[in-house]
Order: sequence, then C-alpha cells, then structure tokens
Amino acid sequence: MEKKKMILDLDTGIDDALAIAYAAGRTDIELLGITSVFGNVTADRAAENSLDILALLGREDVPVYQGEGAPLGEETYAPAAISRQIHGENGVGEIRLAPSGRKTETESGVDFLIRSIMTLGKELTIVATGPLTNLAAVFRRCPQAAGQLGKLVIMGGAVTVPGNVCPWAEANILGDPAAAKTVFESGADIVLVGLDVTMRTLLTRKETAQMRAWGTETGEKLADMTEFYLKAYERLAPWMGGCAIHDPLAVGIAADPSLAETFSTYLTAETEGPLRGRTIGRQELLRTPGGNTAVCLNVDAERYLKGFMEAVGRSAKAPEMNGPERGADAGAPAEGSAGKDNL
Amino acid sequence: MEKKKMILDLDTGIDDALAIAYAAGRTDIELLGITSVFGNVTADRAAENSLDILALLGREDVPVYQGEGAPLGEETYAPAAISRQIHGENGVGEIRLAPSGRKTETESGVDFLIRSIMTLGKELTIVATGPLTNLAAVFRRCPQAAGQLGKLVIMGGAVTVPGNVCPWAEANILGDPAAAKTVFESGADIVLVGLDVTMRTLLTRKETAQMRAWGTETGEKLADMTEFYLKAYERLAPWMGGCAIHDPLAVGIAADPSLAETFSTYLTAETEGPLRGRTIGRQELLRTPGGNTAVCLNVDAERYLKGFMEAVGRSAKAPEMNGPERGADAGAPAEGSAGKDNL
Repeated sequence: MEKKKMILDLDTGIDDALAIAYAAGRTDIELLGITSVFGNVTADRAAENSLDILALLGREDVPVYQGEGAPLGEETYAPAAISRQIHGENGVGEIRLAPSGRKTETESGVDFLIRSIMTLGKELTIVATGPLTNLAAVFRRCPQAAGQLGKLVIMGGAVTVPGNVCPWAEANILGDPAAAKTVFESGADIVLVGLDVTMRTLLTRKETAQMRAWGTETGEKLADMTEFYLKAYERLAPWMGGCAIHDPLAVGIAADPSLAETFSTYLTAETEGPLRGRTIGRQELLRTPGGNTAVCLNVDAERYLKGFMEAVGRSAKAPEMNGPERGADAGAPAEGSAGKDNL
Repeated sequence: MEKKKMILDLDTGIDDALAIAYAAGRTDIELLGITSVFGNVTADRAAENSLDILALLGREDVPVYQGEGAPLGEETYAPAAISRQIHGENGVGEIRLAPSGRKTETESGVDFLIRSIMTLGKELTIVATGPLTNLAAVFRRCPQAAGQLGKLVIMGGAVTVPGNVCPWAEANILGDPAAAKTVFESGADIVLVGLDVTMRTLLTRKETAQMRAWGTETGEKLADMTEFYLKAYERLAPWMGGCAIHDPLAVGIAADPSLAETFSTYLTAETEGPLRGRTIGRQELLRTPGGNTAVCLNVDAERYLKGFMEAVGRSAKAPEMNGPERGADAGAPAEGSAGKDNL
C-alpha cells in the first residue's frame, strides 16, 4: 500500500495531540513533519506539545517546525479563556508530559511547507487543524503552491450548523478570518472538515477506559488528556454525552476520503461585518460548475471511531517499537522512513 | 403516468406567477388548488393575482383559497419596499391582467390544506413559496397532519450561501421565522429549495423573447412580468446577468426530485437573536441519523430551464384549450380533473 505523505499543521491542544497519535498509528500515513501555529495555545507551546507528544509516541523521527505566532497583520496572540478551559493552560489538559529534549527545526514552518509542496507536489497532503495563518503565508508568498499541493484538509468552519465560538463562527476560522479567506480562495484543492461532521463523532469514558487497558504509559497519558477534554465538554455541552474528536477526523478523512460525504462549493470566510468568521458559499459563483472546497456534510462515525481507536492503540501500545524502523513490529505493517529526508 | 396531486401555497408575485404557469403546463402535475399568503404582496393581493394568472392561463378550474394575512401572532402586514421593487406594487410587475371575475373559495386556505392532507395523505404534495404561516397554522391546529402529508417542498432559506434580505436570512423564512421553525420541526417530510439552488437558475431576455415568440397574449404578459423582474435584478444584482427562477424551481423539484442533489439534516429556523431568520442545522441532532429536511444543494439548471420553458410554453400557447378538459388538445397529454372535487 502506498502511504500518503502528510504534514500536520497544528495548534497542539488535546484533540491535536490525539490527531498526532492517530496519524502516527495509521499504517497508510507517512508523517513528514508537524508545523505549529497559535490557536488552542501559543505557537511556541503548540510546537513544544507536538515534540512532547511525538516523544510519548516514540516518534522522535518526525521533525517539528515553528509556525506563525499571531493572526496575519497582528503581533501577538494569547489563547482565549475558552481554549484554556477546554485544553488546559498547557494545552494538554494540565497533564505533565516528559519533555522531549528535542527542539524545533531551524527552518521555519512556512518555509518547510513551501519546500514540501514544491518538492512533493500532488503527492503531499497537508492537514491543518488550527487557524490558517501558516497556509495563508505560504500562498501569499508563493501563490503557485496552491495549485501544486495535492490536498489541503482543514478542520475548521461550520457550514450547515452553528459555530462554537459564536452562532456563526468556528474557532479556527475566527482565529484568523483573513487567512481563511486567502486559503479558500487560493485555488488549492481543499476538503473542509467542519463542525458539520466533527460534532457527529464522539469519545466517551468507554474509549478512555480502553486506552488505559492498553497498559502503557502512553495509553494512560492519552486517556488523562482525553478525560480533561471530556470534562470540559460535560460542563460546556452536556447534551453531547462525550467529546467531539475534531482534529483527528481531518486526519482520518485525509487518509480515507470514503469516510465522508462531501458537497463541492466555492467557499470563503467572512473577514468583517457582523458575521466575521463565518464560512459561507460564494453566491456569485453558484452558476460556475465545481467548487474550491469539498465540504464534508456527513461521516461514517462508527467506522471512523473504530479505526481511530485501532490506530491510536497501535501508537500507544508499544511506543518503544514505533518510529521509522518499526517494520520489525509484527503487529504493524512496515512504515516508510519519515521526515525531511524525503523532501 | 400518474400525476402528482399538488397544492401551491403562494404569495403571488412574479416568480409565483411563473410557478403557476409552470405547474399548469407540466403534464405530470394535477393542480388541486392554490392558497394565498402574505409576503411579496398582501395575502388578498396574492389571491387576486393567482386568480388572474389562472384566468390568463385558461385554468379557471383551479380553486384559490384565502390564507393567512400576517405572521403568527401579528395583526397586519405590509410588503417591504424591496418586495415592491422586485414585484411591483401590484405584485405582477405593474402589468395589467384582465380581472378573472372569480372569487376565492369560502373555505379558508388553512382549512383547505388540512382537509386536503387528511383526505389525500401521502398522495399530496404541497409547494410553499412564501412565508410558512399557513403551514404552521395547519400543523399547530392539526399536528398529525405533518406525518400524513406526502411532501412539503419549500422555496425558502439559504443554508450554504448568504440570505437575500440580509447576510443570514432569506425573505420567506424571515417573513415568519416562528412559522418556519414550527414547520421544520413538525415532522413533515420537507424538501428545502433555498437560495443554495435557486440562485443557480437564470432567466434572461433570451427566454422572454421566446415567450413573446409564442405569439399569444399569455406569452406576452408572462414576458412583460418577467422583464419587470429582470430589470429589478439588473439593478439589485447586476453580476447575475439575469433573474433567478426561485419559486418555479420548487414546483420543478416537487414534480421531478431527480433535478436536485440533496443533503438530509435536522433543519430549523432561528426565531430570535442576531441571526433571526437563519435556516440552520440543529447541532444537538447531528448524531441522530436521518433528518427532517432534504436541503437542495445542487440542481441540473440546464434541464430545469429547458423543462420550465416547455411547460410554460404549453400553458401559454393555447390557454383557451387548457383546463381539465384539455385532453382533447393533441399537443398535451390528458390532464385529469383538478380541484376540490378530488378531495
């Protein structure tokens, strides 16, 4: 099986951490690198969390790059109170992870993304689960990159359902609406994994118990983080009966598009006015066939959850056997070498 | 071919008038009656326009019923300035139609709808192209009617694109959001034909020239009305290059669902707050399979326009040969008897 070459662009909070564990455990993904962006936490903290999670997973072969620290045109960023409630002050539910000891690469996240797109072209899939500032910087600096990239799968937006920050906006899009607009209108081949589908997925204490039953420190830490996240959902959205698995769903649909039903349209983001941050179809292009974005409207939530737990389990059960050489592990198909050497 | 039994619930402005001509000319529709509602014009004017249009089409066999004159809980209604700009003061583009001489039936629109649903059940399709006040009154008075009705096809709403009255609301829904909410949540089997698809359809002067080329007074009047509507679009939405054929599309999709691609969800309308009048999926039901509404997201606009012009042409070319007895017209398949006698 040909593996999909993938870069994750993350504002590493709890569900981003689960997205790393899921991507690392999927045997059909070659994880080339992780870029950091502000959002759930600062971009610095996001990078640090990604490094620590990779260490926890035994995947220190995956390089991490420092991305943009604030929305386009702004100098600073501080996470909102709601982000701290959902992800904790440290972004991983106040769970103490062993510091990886590794540092981010010297190359910037935006440079790494541009270089990867230019080198790998259609072979490359980027999964973005935070504000789209890194991608907007890529496409502004290098407009031809949009047409060369294989796929850009975005966790963000809410097209047919209300937002989560306010009734019209989802957090990642509202985090930098101008960046989102740039990205949507860039010409890139985009799949939008918004609240329309992520709110159809659910983790409960059944899954965290399963994580603990794996009997590894990695499983325990992932369960601890997930339970912090679950508790936030219990306070903020008790009607759900669990927590949505937002960011990993973008990884899942990137790897296996058959998980989702999509609708193609010319999407954009509103950058000003009373509906700032809304993701909406461009009325003036309704008579133009096709679209710039495949908006996910439905998902096989059961199959996704099953695959998610299997892959995270693969990551968590034997982290010391992970990494690019874990082809020796009879339990997991051979994993190709990952990281910057491929570029 | 079994004809679909259909009632039209109209706030008869110009595109409602075209919807009547289209429904009357489709050989697969048995037009049982028209109910009136406020919206583009007052409910009185809507009824009068429907009577006059039916007379113009030689379809005085179709009864017209007076419906609700104001939103739920309100006493009066006056059309907005924008409605008068688009449809004219008289609702049919200031075109003078010969008065039909007929009157509305003594039975109220709401009573007629309830009686029709109770008598015909799943055989009945209702197409509503104005505010949903009549239907809400039906379902409030007779909740079991929702489950007994075949299909309710609504021209209204905007799920994936901006509204037309304001960026979040479409005129028919904003005309009575509480009624819309009642109808969406009634349990009725609903198809939503919103701006998502109606803005993909277009009439231009090419079609009005074709209407005139039919060489009948009916064709001339329809062309005159359509050109008034076109001119309004040229002022208000010059980028479109024509006018959307909103209301007839609901008739078209009601008769031939294969014209549209739909997405099933639990839709509702917001009745208060800053997004009053928005049509939006109910987040709390995202994990419940199915939906209450098939939201149309795409349409075969070319096939629709072709069929629309054919059917309107059938109505307009020989109105004196129309009516329930026009089976004698070699040009048109037999039309069953229509109207209240069938109930």
